[in-house]
Amino acid sequence: MVSVILIGTGNVATQLYDNFLLHPSIKVVQVIGRSAKSLAYFTSKTETSLITGIIKKADVYFIAISDDAIETVAHELTDVDGLVVHTSGSVPLSILSKLKRIGVFYPLQTFTKGKKLDFRNIPICLEIGNKEEDKPLKFIAETISDTVYDINSEQRKSLHLAAVFVNNFTNYMYRMGQEICEEHQVPFAILKPLIHETANKINIISPENAQTGPARRNDLQTMQLHLDQLQTDEKKEIYKLVSESIQKKYKSPKRL
Amino acid sequence: MVSVILIGTGNVATQLYDNFLLHPSIKVVQVIGRSAKSLAYFTSKTETSLITGIIKKADVYFIAISDDAIETVAHELTDVDGLVVHTSGSVPLSILSKLKRIGVFYPLQTFTKGKKLDFRNIPICLEIGNKEEDKPLKFIAETISDTVYDINSEQRKSLHLAAVFVNNFTNYMYRMGQEICEEHQVPFAILKPLIHETANKINIISPENAQTGPARRNDLQTMQLHLDQLQTDEKKEIYKLVSESIQKKYKSPKRL
Repeated sequence: MVSVILIGTGNVATQLYDNFLLHPSIKVVQVIGRSAKSLAYFTSKTETSLITGIIKKADVYFIAISDDAIETVAHELTDVDGLVVHTSGSVPLSILSKLKRIGVFYPLQTFTKGKKLDFRNIPICLEIGNKEEDKPLKFIAETISDTVYDINSEQRKSLHLAAVFVNNFTNYMYRMGQEICEEHQVPFAILKPLIHETANKINIISPENAQTGPARRNDLQTMQLHLDQLQTDEKKEIYKLVSESIQKKYKSPKRL
Repeated sequence: MVSVILIGTGNVATQLYDNFLLHPSIKVVQVIGRSAKSLAYFTSKTETSLITGIIKKADVYFIAISDDAIETVAHELTDVDGLVVHTSGSVPLSILSKLKRIGVFYPLQTFTKGKKLDFRNIPICLEIGNKEEDKPLKFIAETISDTVYDINSEQRKSLHLAAVFVNNFTNYMYRMGQEICEEHQVPFAILKPLIHETANKINIISPENAQTGPARRNDLQTMQLHLDQLQTDEKKEIYKLVSESIQKKYKSPKRL
């Protein structure tokens, strides 16, 4: 059994908490938050404390809070003997360097408030200060997830950047699609099966080979029609830049 | 029972054919193609013919070929009495105006060669020259799909444009994510659950509300780090433009 303390009460902390509770071999001994209100969800099931209060003993401490608060909170943990890990995609391990035993536990997923996710299918990226001390962290990761990776800070930074493209920017493409639908009184719901199938395709074919559309075909006429049709400069610019980039990729001399 | 002739042997034609065959109330009487080779898949099960050959009688003729060939092929069908429909998202109904009875049957989905799709979940957008003649087309659409929409040429054009954003551009975001992974020796597979969850989110929350990431938070420091990290001007430009657009959307005065 591994004992755990959760520091944080937001989306990631709550999802971790709910998943830890499913496994008897992981014991959450305390949840630490900034205010009594933020701790309300946890108090009935687990001991809670404010960050200024008494911090108990545990094998692993999870700092699951916003990136820019990690360093400050870490200062409160200089005395603990357990392993202290943060859960951020972009913050280097070294931010915890003043602590005794440190690591990173980065679940690569997007969390929605109120939507419980099964960690079984969520990749966990681990990094650890001292390789010989990775046992409790690895145990927790492998208990809750089927896919656990050893990833260093550089690689994690790249994954986080790649995630901006496949998650944040992709969602923004959805938003622009939705706006175009609304401008022309067509229900956005018509596009949902297409959105799902576009995502499903990556399971059987690489994005490189899955690329279709007017830019991929170098269909200049359709692209011009689309540009004329778009109602805002913002969308026109994005349409142009992304299309030009696709055209370059698929027409570059090395591919001919 | 409705009789059908398919003109075309590509992805859309093949998917339609496979789905029509599942329903005894839809009878494919002929498949028409450009060459014996392209017709090979169909010959064992259905009568086939070259476009220059004899075209049989049917209730509905489906022209499922590339956009720029529709007009030429339509010329061969001026004598038929059945309803002639094309399956394109961007070609107006009027391209068929020289024929007697015309329509559009646009399945809004992305088709991958070799991956059979169940049309049950694919939205079918119908447009018909003469509303009183829509029965056979509506019957076919409702037989193979659960979601059938009446959409005019203008709306269909908008849907097709919106589809470029949510499908073509989204896939390109996946590709850029994959490239970033490859540049840093991290397996792209780590991102797949994130890609799926990003798509699944639209079922419970609108893209507008689902937006996250450094640009949404106006986190200038992380955005600068990401720009420094990107290895090609192309990716830098896309990162910048899309991020700026997100920043504008979520910081615009009317939203404050």
